[in-house]
Amino acid sequence: MTSELSLTGYPPQDLLLREDFNKKIEFYKKKIIGLTKSQETIFALSIPVVENKKILNSLILIKSGKLIYSTHKKELPNYGVFDELRYFNSKSSKKNYFNYKNKKIDFLICEDMWSEKYLMDRTYEKLDLIIIINASPYEIGKFDIRKKLASKRAKYCSANLIYLNLVGSQDDLIFDGGSFVMNNLGKIIMQSSFFKECEEIIDLDKKIEERKIKKINKYEHIYKALMEGLRNYIIKNNFKSVTLGLSGGIDSALTLAILADTLDNVEISSFFLPSIYTSDESREDAYALSRNVSIDTKEISIEMLRKNISKHLQPIFKNLKEDITEENIQSRLRGLILMAISNKFDSLLITTGNKSELAVGYSTLYGDMCGGYSLLKDIYKTKVIELCEWRNKNFFDDFKIKKLNIIPDRIITKEPSAELKFNQFDKDSLPPYKILDKILEYLIDQNRDLKFIVNQGYNKKIVKRIWSMIKKSEFKRYQSAIGPKITKMSLSSDRRFPLTNKFDLQ
Amino acid sequence: MTSELSLTGYPPQDLLLREDFNKKIEFYKKKIIGLTKSQETIFALSIPVVENKKILNSLILIKSGKLIYSTHKKELPNYGVFDELRYFNSKSSKKNYFNYKNKKIDFLICEDMWSEKYLMDRTYEKLDLIIIINASPYEIGKFDIRKKLASKRAKYCSANLIYLNLVGSQDDLIFDGGSFVMNNLGKIIMQSSFFKECEEIIDLDKKIEERKIKKINKYEHIYKALMEGLRNYIIKNNFKSVTLGLSGGIDSALTLAILADTLDNVEISSFFLPSIYTSDESREDAYALSRNVSIDTKEISIEMLRKNISKHLQPIFKNLKEDITEENIQSRLRGLILMAISNKFDSLLITTGNKSELAVGYSTLYGDMCGGYSLLKDIYKTKVIELCEWRNKNFFDDFKIKKLNIIPDRIITKEPSAELKFNQFDKDSLPPYKILDKILEYLIDQNRDLKFIVNQGYNKKIVKRIWSMIKKSEFKRYQSAIGPKITKMSLSSDRRFPLTNKFDLQ
Repeated sequence: MTSELSLTGYPPQDLLLREDFNKKIEFYKKKIIGLTKSQETIFALSIPVVENKKILNSLILIKSGKLIYSTHKKELPNYGVFDELRYFNSKSSKKNYFNYKNKKIDFLICEDMWSEKYLMDRTYEKLDLIIIINASPYEIGKFDIRKKLASKRAKYCSANLIYLNLVGSQDDLIFDGGSFVMNNLGKIIMQSSFFKECEEIIDLDKKIEERKIKKINKYEHIYKALMEGLRNYIIKNNFKSVTLGLSGGIDSALTLAILADTLDNVEISSFFLPSIYTSDESREDAYALSRNVSIDTKEISIEMLRKNISKHLQPIFKNLKEDITEENIQSRLRGLILMAISNKFDSLLITTGNKSELAVGYSTLYGDMCGGYSLLKDIYKTKVIELCEWRNKNFFDDFKIKKLNIIPDRIITKEPSAELKFNQFDKDSLPPYKILDKILEYLIDQNRDLKFIVNQGYNKKIVKRIWSMIKKSEFKRYQSAIGPKITKMSLSSDRRFPLTNKFDLQ
Repeated sequence: MTSELSLTGYPPQDLLLREDFNKKIEFYKKKIIGLTKSQETIFALSIPVVENKKILNSLILIKSGKLIYSTHKKELPNYGVFDELRYFNSKSSKKNYFNYKNKKIDFLICEDMWSEKYLMDRTYEKLDLIIIINASPYEIGKFDIRKKLASKRAKYCSANLIYLNLVGSQDDLIFDGGSFVMNNLGKIIMQSSFFKECEEIIDLDKKIEERKIKKINKYEHIYKALMEGLRNYIIKNNFKSVTLGLSGGIDSALTLAILADTLDNVEISSFFLPSIYTSDESREDAYALSRNVSIDTKEISIEMLRKNISKHLQPIFKNLKEDITEENIQSRLRGLILMAISNKFDSLLITTGNKSELAVGYSTLYGDMCGGYSLLKDIYKTKVIELCEWRNKNFFDDFKIKKLNIIPDRIITKEPSAELKFNQFDKDSLPPYKILDKILEYLIDQNRDLKFIVNQGYNKKIVKRIWSMIKKSEFKRYQSAIGPKITKMSLSSDRRFPLTNKFDLQ
């Protein structure tokens, strides 16, 4: 049994609009059918199928060199990260079960399970087995919803249920696996791992008791999701080396920790790029962290270059006051140096900004935003802190660094600063992150209005100011690197706002 | 009468998912209805309307303080740049005409006209008037299709027809106007201007003869479309100044020509940023062009900074050979300087790359790709040349520069070079643009397969190499600035390919 669109990968996006792509699928479909000639086992393959010039998101069953059954996705998601109506057609579903050895088996594809409509459609009917194949992108808390919906369906049809999910990632989407089997009472009797391929044989004719499932630790899952997204992007795009700039701050610290925990046979090149504004504490912290994760961080000062450029621009800038321009120059010099290293050594630059910064535009386009993969793109600053605290108290067998407390305490507890001028702290230009992140969650993740947010106890002026910052930085996010989706509203393909936008909160 | 979604702008994208946005629409709807209390004229307003928690793309008719008729878009486009199924629901259309003074009037909204299905649906029925309101994005050659479809419909229903289109632009979409009126024989009896607001009174009860319409000049339309997109982006985003880097090459030359022809009350800051690799010819050409369009181009050499950085990176790069890294450093230094100027003077940096470069990744991310608006993003190099030739022979009343031959011949005729090392020419790394652009059009704009392209007489190896270059530069385009859509397949929101993509041509 394979997960949704396993032959092509999910989502294939506009490749589906190419005839040669669809022909290649047809070619391999036939080849696979041929390979089963002398096999008794049924192979369930999920592929796009073209019928009358329309593309269906399908599942076909193959046995002994023959296609013995096929079914198609009925509910095509077209919200959030999903654009399935751009590509697929749904076929109206006749009640059409697969009968095998006197068992009635119903197949669903991903979104089909999520539709209440579809559930209602099937007036009570006893089934023996429901099989749901998925490429269900990871989101914090999503597993509990899957479990609830599956349980409802198993009970409704008094059927055993197999929920099969993809493990891996494609661009910004992470697939967390966590496949499970339920009995006809809607209780889980087999639960496979998250973020890990695995194998288990289960005999549904034997009575199997409900299994106690370990409660999911939110931070463990987020951390492992980030590892999975990172690992896949690097392997699938053939990188043998990654580069990052280490500032002594918390974002690059968490990024390096995840890189060090995840990457095997991939070189990690870390650089500390101080200017006159860099504190001794930042240097100490950056090197302490590097030692903890056994990475040799190299230092390249940007100070001389910074001065040269400032001097060089003086005839143009004349007597104008220093402002954000001079701060951005530092950030862009770091970007330039890191990209030079990335180019010279064919190494993927990982950008370290977090969701809070990106949401309000507190980041330099072509500066600290440089990089091919934005690991913390969907992680608000407060969550960055919590993840560091969690990592300091936890590691697992599959982590490369088998140590606790790898991130120095001071990195976690000190006042956040971009160190682009003396005595500069994030809190000078932004509300405290605890407040900012809550407001961002309301404005971005929940699309809440001003009244609602003010009713939660937040200051009206601050909320309006943050909305304005979100709007003004839309063009920066438009040009930002791709990064793994972790929440229901990532800044990659979930959120699609106009750059030119005059809508004000009122 | 207003064009499609005139109150919100088109497309409002995810703003539609916000309740406060929809409430604000409702507020203004009521306000507008109130304003018509003492008016006899019917006002046709197009807005999103929420009905039973579903959003409809609607047109309402208002008269004397009352809503007297409403209709909804039936065909929701969800291909190319369109994502209407993400937001809107269609309402099944009962044959529901607006009757006014014994005239039967049918209203269609944009895509409704494009659907053959809808045409077939209305078995022959005589109408008096068909009114089609649109926000139909400009594409080369699209007007002829609109005219053909409208004519078919007018004849089919023996009805007069008004085709009303938006003028302006929103982000990457340009709306070219060109509204027209047809008689019941499908012949145009009134044609309004393209890219210009206008007003004309027409009495349909009088017999009006078919009007001879001036044949559309492709280059004139493209040039004016670029002007329209640029002007709107700058005005709507409140920029008082734009900046660009002038290289002496053809892309920045065409860009400056369009800026100079378009912008009024917006300062144009032009910079020539030579290195040791810059030829005397480039300097002469850049300044000759600047004089022709009366722009004072300033020179800032990057040579000293380039040397400094190379020296600074020597300990890291050791004895490794010079390669693309050193070329990118120059391009990124220029980007850094131009962005510093953009920041200091709150000026929009216009990036000058063309569609050919962007398609194959022959451009430096965070270098020449820096900027907030990518004017030539959808213009292949061969078309850049043709547009320069056209501009040298043409100008119009609304062009700020009322001169011919503003772009020096040598800029158009010389061998294209990035001048990032000595004796470097584009043709060393790329096929001649005449060949490259044809292959790109087949691969990108038409999604053609290898066999088809080889059958057109192109070399198999070259086609495969170009496909590979397109794939490898997907991450660059993902981070590229927004730019105006000119063709059926722009690189902004038309084309949505995975960054991680192993599909090879075979």
